[in-house]
Amino acid sequence: MGEKRIRAEYESVAVSTRMRLARNFKDYPFPGRLLSDPHAAEQSGEMIRLLSAALAGVEDFTLYEMESIPEETAARLKERYLISRELMRNRKISAALISRDESISVMINEEDHLRVQYFMKGYDLHRAYERIAGIDDIISDSIPFAYDEKLGYLTACPTNLGTGLRASVMLFLPALARRGRMKRIIPTLTRLGLTVRGVFGEGSGAEGDLFQISNEITLGLDEEELLFGVEQAVSIIVETELLERGRMKAEEGIELKDKIFRSYGILSSCCRLKEKEFSARISDLKLGTVLGYMGREGSMSELDQLAIAMRPASIRALAGCELGEEEGAIFRAEYVAKKIKEMGLLS
Amino acid sequence: MGEKRIRAEYESVAVSTRMRLARNFKDYPFPGRLLSDPHAAEQSGEMIRLLSAALAGVEDFTLYEMESIPEETAARLKERYLISRELMRNRKISAALISRDESISVMINEEDHLRVQYFMKGYDLHRAYERIAGIDDIISDSIPFAYDEKLGYLTACPTNLGTGLRASVMLFLPALARRGRMKRIIPTLTRLGLTVRGVFGEGSGAEGDLFQISNEITLGLDEEELLFGVEQAVSIIVETELLERGRMKAEEGIELKDKIFRSYGILSSCCRLKEKEFSARISDLKLGTVLGYMGREGSMSELDQLAIAMRPASIRALAGCELGEEEGAIFRAEYVAKKIKEMGLLS
Repeated sequence: MGEKRIRAEYESVAVSTRMRLARNFKDYPFPGRLLSDPHAAEQSGEMIRLLSAALAGVEDFTLYEMESIPEETAARLKERYLISRELMRNRKISAALISRDESISVMINEEDHLRVQYFMKGYDLHRAYERIAGIDDIISDSIPFAYDEKLGYLTACPTNLGTGLRASVMLFLPALARRGRMKRIIPTLTRLGLTVRGVFGEGSGAEGDLFQISNEITLGLDEEELLFGVEQAVSIIVETELLERGRMKAEEGIELKDKIFRSYGILSSCCRLKEKEFSARISDLKLGTVLGYMGREGSMSELDQLAIAMRPASIRALAGCELGEEEGAIFRAEYVAKKIKEMGLLS
Repeated sequence: MGEKRIRAEYESVAVSTRMRLARNFKDYPFPGRLLSDPHAAEQSGEMIRLLSAALAGVEDFTLYEMESIPEETAARLKERYLISRELMRNRKISAALISRDESISVMINEEDHLRVQYFMKGYDLHRAYERIAGIDDIISDSIPFAYDEKLGYLTACPTNLGTGLRASVMLFLPALARRGRMKRIIPTLTRLGLTVRGVFGEGSGAEGDLFQISNEITLGLDEEELLFGVEQAVSIIVETELLERGRMKAEEGIELKDKIFRSYGILSSCCRLKEKEFSARISDLKLGTVLGYMGREGSMSELDQLAIAMRPASIRALAGCELGEEEGAIFRAEYVAKKIKEMGLLS
């Protein structure tokens, strides 16, 4: 019981884990060169077939060939972090294999031949690493990778050389972000070879108080060392955030509670809601949930799902058409009010 | 039915009617002089007994002798417009007789010996006048008033000479006030011998979009002419406000609706609510009700009652003790949220 509570507390900060491997096929030109190759289509077709065959036994994957899928589908996959902008740019040769539950995404001919990504809710670097290493093994059984004894896995960009592994943890840091603590934390982490960035936008200004921490260096460390580095940093940030939440609650008290409940009132009643305001207010509700002011088991996850559902391409899909800014704000307000009421956060 | 609908529309602007008479006893010094009279207590005691006897058959009155009632009671009566600041200042000689339903208040030894006031919900100058004239007749049957053939009823201040009658109508003017129309309307009414003032504060800046219109002049016109003047002005303001509400709804549309529903969300959820914000937001809800966005029959009246219940002395009475600003804001938020939810404005 105690351990479960500690885990729940930990995961109120470290909300999800993402693991990514960069790999290249030994026998094909790297994507940057492949793009201008006269036989590009033929070769990328071959690679896609090879990979599909290799993964056939693992899970039920859906193949998205970037050249033939609608823009709108691509936008939605990108919004859900299943494909990248770069994959969309390379559409003449690129594709993605995505598992039914969207936990595994393999991008073909992004910056590298393969970008294998595994995503899981909650915080567990080792489980996530085991899962992705398993997939890596299966692929490498049938496809020889570009590998150098000294450098390790070869990649298009030197930052990915070596293990080709990037471990990322999504952090919900309302107390640190709102109380101006991130500007001191970020440089410290950078010195430790880690990157922290706000989830929307490249700067440190995160909407929704969400930050992603990941290792910057993949060369010169083995996988265990690399994961250990991320784990250390996450545990420090989690403790700092939990401490700061306590301070925040003690120092800001009713003022903070009032802000959170006003956001609840506005989200459940308003008629127009812009994206930026929505992000800020949904973060207030998540903060209210982690501080015990509202919600129950499962509320955090429901709020996160709502946040994902309210990204632009997802709204277009729900509305069934393109919406202008004003129409989007009206649609968002109506949808959010309905969902928030259904969640029964105050009951 | 049509007439009932028109009446309801009219009374969504002209929300209540107040009639006041100033009278003085012929055989006693005016209050200003009485205050420094060595036999003040004796004489005021006599006057109170005379008046109580005269009104005995009319209604069930409660007598409040200002010298002997607690400050807190006086503050609450004042907040409900049943007594005035001046009556409280004259406490050595002053008293008030207030009917059980609080529709009639007779102040003794305010600026004049008698200030008889009748208040009713809704808009009906003639019914209100008849009621107060009836009380006036009953009192004058047993107490001779100071009266001059040429000047009419004599009063302490020349502005009340003549009929001694002040007819007031409370106006809810959200559209005119919010759209900056009052600064043109007020001078016009002043030229017509009428006063318009915001209900809280003496300036024109009304909290809660409430304004009171009343006749300035009581001399040189008979009662019918005086009431006709107020009636004319009210009917023009009502029509202008209704027109402006229509324009407001058409021009501001979803923006206005959003503002109103946000106020609903905040009032039903917040944890701290200052008096000024409460006034503004309750006015939004009343506006939402008159525009048909929310509420049902009786909602306006419930919202008005809530506004009265949230005045400072009334809050103290509900809380059972004196509250600091911060505690008051917390108490108000909790009370308001409960009441707003009970009203079922959105069902």
